[in-house]
Amino acid sequence: MQHTHALAGFLADLHYAQIPSPVLDRTEDLFLDWLGSALASQGAHPIPLFERYAQRMGPAEGRARVLTSGRSSSPYFAALVNGAASHLVEQDDLHNSSVLHPATVVFSAVLAAAQDLGKSGKALLLAAVAGYEAGIRIGEFLGRSHYRVFHTTATVGTLAAAVGVGKLLGFDKEQFINLLGTAGTQAAGLWEFLRDAADSKQLHTAKAAADGLLAAYLTADGLSGARNILEGDQGLAAGMSSDADPARLSDRLGTRWALAETSFKFHASCRHTHPAADALLHLMQREGLSHEHIAKVVTRVHQGALDVLGRVSVPSTVHQAKFSMGTVLGLIAVHGSAQLLEFRDLALTDPHVASLRDKVEMQLDAEVDAAYPARWLGRVEVTCNDGRRLSAAIDQPKGDPGNTLSRPELEAKFQRLLAYSGARSPAQGQALIEQVWQLRDAPSLAALY
Amino acid sequence: MQHTHALAGFLADLHYAQIPSPVLDRTEDLFLDWLGSALASQGAHPIPLFERYAQRMGPAEGRARVLTSGRSSSPYFAALVNGAASHLVEQDDLHNSSVLHPATVVFSAVLAAAQDLGKSGKALLLAAVAGYEAGIRIGEFLGRSHYRVFHTTATVGTLAAAVGVGKLLGFDKEQFINLLGTAGTQAAGLWEFLRDAADSKQLHTAKAAADGLLAAYLTADGLSGARNILEGDQGLAAGMSSDADPARLSDRLGTRWALAETSFKFHASCRHTHPAADALLHLMQREGLSHEHIAKVVTRVHQGALDVLGRVSVPSTVHQAKFSMGTVLGLIAVHGSAQLLEFRDLALTDPHVASLRDKVEMQLDAEVDAAYPARWLGRVEVTCNDGRRLSAAIDQPKGDPGNTLSRPELEAKFQRLLAYSGARSPAQGQALIEQVWQLRDAPSLAALY
Repeated sequence: MQHTHALAGFLADLHYAQIPSPVLDRTEDLFLDWLGSALASQGAHPIPLFERYAQRMGPAEGRARVLTSGRSSSPYFAALVNGAASHLVEQDDLHNSSVLHPATVVFSAVLAAAQDLGKSGKALLLAAVAGYEAGIRIGEFLGRSHYRVFHTTATVGTLAAAVGVGKLLGFDKEQFINLLGTAGTQAAGLWEFLRDAADSKQLHTAKAAADGLLAAYLTADGLSGARNILEGDQGLAAGMSSDADPARLSDRLGTRWALAETSFKFHASCRHTHPAADALLHLMQREGLSHEHIAKVVTRVHQGALDVLGRVSVPSTVHQAKFSMGTVLGLIAVHGSAQLLEFRDLALTDPHVASLRDKVEMQLDAEVDAAYPARWLGRVEVTCNDGRRLSAAIDQPKGDPGNTLSRPELEAKFQRLLAYSGARSPAQGQALIEQVWQLRDAPSLAALY
Repeated sequence: MQHTHALAGFLADLHYAQIPSPVLDRTEDLFLDWLGSALASQGAHPIPLFERYAQRMGPAEGRARVLTSGRSSSPYFAALVNGAASHLVEQDDLHNSSVLHPATVVFSAVLAAAQDLGKSGKALLLAAVAGYEAGIRIGEFLGRSHYRVFHTTATVGTLAAAVGVGKLLGFDKEQFINLLGTAGTQAAGLWEFLRDAADSKQLHTAKAAADGLLAAYLTADGLSGARNILEGDQGLAAGMSSDADPARLSDRLGTRWALAETSFKFHASCRHTHPAADALLHLMQREGLSHEHIAKVVTRVHQGALDVLGRVSVPSTVHQAKFSMGTVLGLIAVHGSAQLLEFRDLALTDPHVASLRDKVEMQLDAEVDAAYPARWLGRVEVTCNDGRRLSAAIDQPKGDPGNTLSRPELEAKFQRLLAYSGARSPAQGQALIEQVWQLRDAPSLAALY
């Protein structure tokens, strides 16, 4: 368990002053992006179910905030509801090589705990960095075999959330070892729900954030956990991976800042569709092509895209549409955009989108698959009605670290997210943006909701 | 998913009048045994941690009861703490072929929900039967490969608890299908903690009961789940078993009452030690042997016993001692008994016990292994200091359905459990016993704690 030891030691020793300024900036960027994703789902099924559950099972009030309802509660329920809310519109961040959406689990847990514990903005940033660095490495450690059946953001998310809250609680190395054990033995979440468009994705992120917080609070109180939950013979990798690589757990700790490798989502669909969407948009702009010219689209993809997207040919819900490669490319081809409004208003009803959807085919590509998950390559081949065959390649989808969103782009996305649900007015949104850009000077986070 | 459909249909249609009277009697027996197990752990680490967590995160009061603290709370937290408490002293029931401890997860969830919902004793019994019948079949379905790495009472326990609460909530077939999806995607719990004597076993049963309850309440409110979580390509068996047998899910529904196959624990140790303990006790009584005559004990066991017990040679905690075959046989040989008091006062400190412990060896036996988990065979071979070699075989350990405990034996065990922790006086214990024997006539369960 040398790698687990190294990771726990790094987490215990990590200090605010040690984190490079661009990484802190990016953490604020990610936090704003998360906040917008949570607020965008206000009122949308199944979020009110989680809000009602929190009221039924939790205290009448508390020091932590449920973002969508504005009510206060204990941090367990704030983490639960905010975790459910911040992944619903599929606009939250993604780390490529771990296939983890860190923000929805990490920020949901650490904001709730920071509010409960009266911590500062600096403490929140430090805790988030710890959660990202641990979660991303654990996701990479579990490998591609894990992601085939398990929803990594659910399973690894529990550990990432726990580590963030553990950092807020000032854990030492021993406590982090116990914490990993207690969080890791709760890790759960299966992809099976996808083919039924069931609500489990919200349950997964809700539970990962809340269970991680539970693990940290119980560890602080003295609950012990397995000391080798990651690498042990009856641990996480033994049970839920066939290609685990322990060296990834301690990969360049303190010099590699994995948080800064996280991608922002530009399109409002499953990230597996983004490389093809960007490549198709590029090709159509380059060639001056309209959707009416297109006879067929072949997109060459990695196996993970086939596993996650291959289930549904004709989507029946907006959520399924976000996991339908044909629908996403249909929106791009017909409307030039696949944002939340296009999904809500056009994805299921526009006959032109449906027509193009049925012309799309995914094919496994050896080069794309070999690059994945470190790089998400976009490859499309379009056959035109006049017989021409055109192709385009994109190596860094928009939002990737090498093609990231600027602060003005992030602010515009944030306001789009708020406008989508009507959760906050543009002026309230602007006030939240200013709070986030001054996060590192905030003595308390009580007012942040 | 025909077997899942059959199971869900059975659960929806199950009526109180359909359950044979001996099965209802046995359900009451199991409930009393569970109640004693929970109360026996009052004040013992880590139960107060869970009680404090419930106070910190939950409401100041509610309609459900935390048995060990006597406080009231919402049903989520009552299920959580009672789930943690009722498995700690290792005296709760076990179903052999599923290797599931049903009571700790099922009764913790259904009592909390029944109190919250104002349900009757009859409703509680019906809900418990549903939870047992589903949980046992799902455990059998997942097979031996699952149990090698996963703590079945944690994983399957989440589904069993959910089904019990779903029955209290009057679910139809569709709701049960959704409920299985929402509970199954939360299924978690790894054996890795065993080698560190960590507190995860209490966390596992706590979370299974509470998560199952959460799944049922959210399903009642309209949360959807994967429709084929058990048998699907990215479901529970796909991710966490290599020998799943779907036919077990619907095995003789309505004619086989799996609840009645559940064993009571007589010795206060891991059930995997019981067959050998009974066989050694039988041999020593038959031969008039004292522990001082014994040079060596070989016990022939199934692979599951080696997996679970093989980790620790010299136990350093009472909990580890309960998983040490040598210590259990040492207590049997030296003191003729391995009850809670012997574990607390003698297991770690008596030099005679330690001496015999070091003479014990476990060996895999093909016949014993082939019979497991349907039958738990006890086989011991003793070599005496004078060179004699003796052997004994037990085919049904005490507490097994064919060698079960009578109501007077259960009452005596219940009073021993209460006396161990001092949670209730003998008179209070007697009052609880009478409440349980009249459970099917109780209009409410509010007073039961």
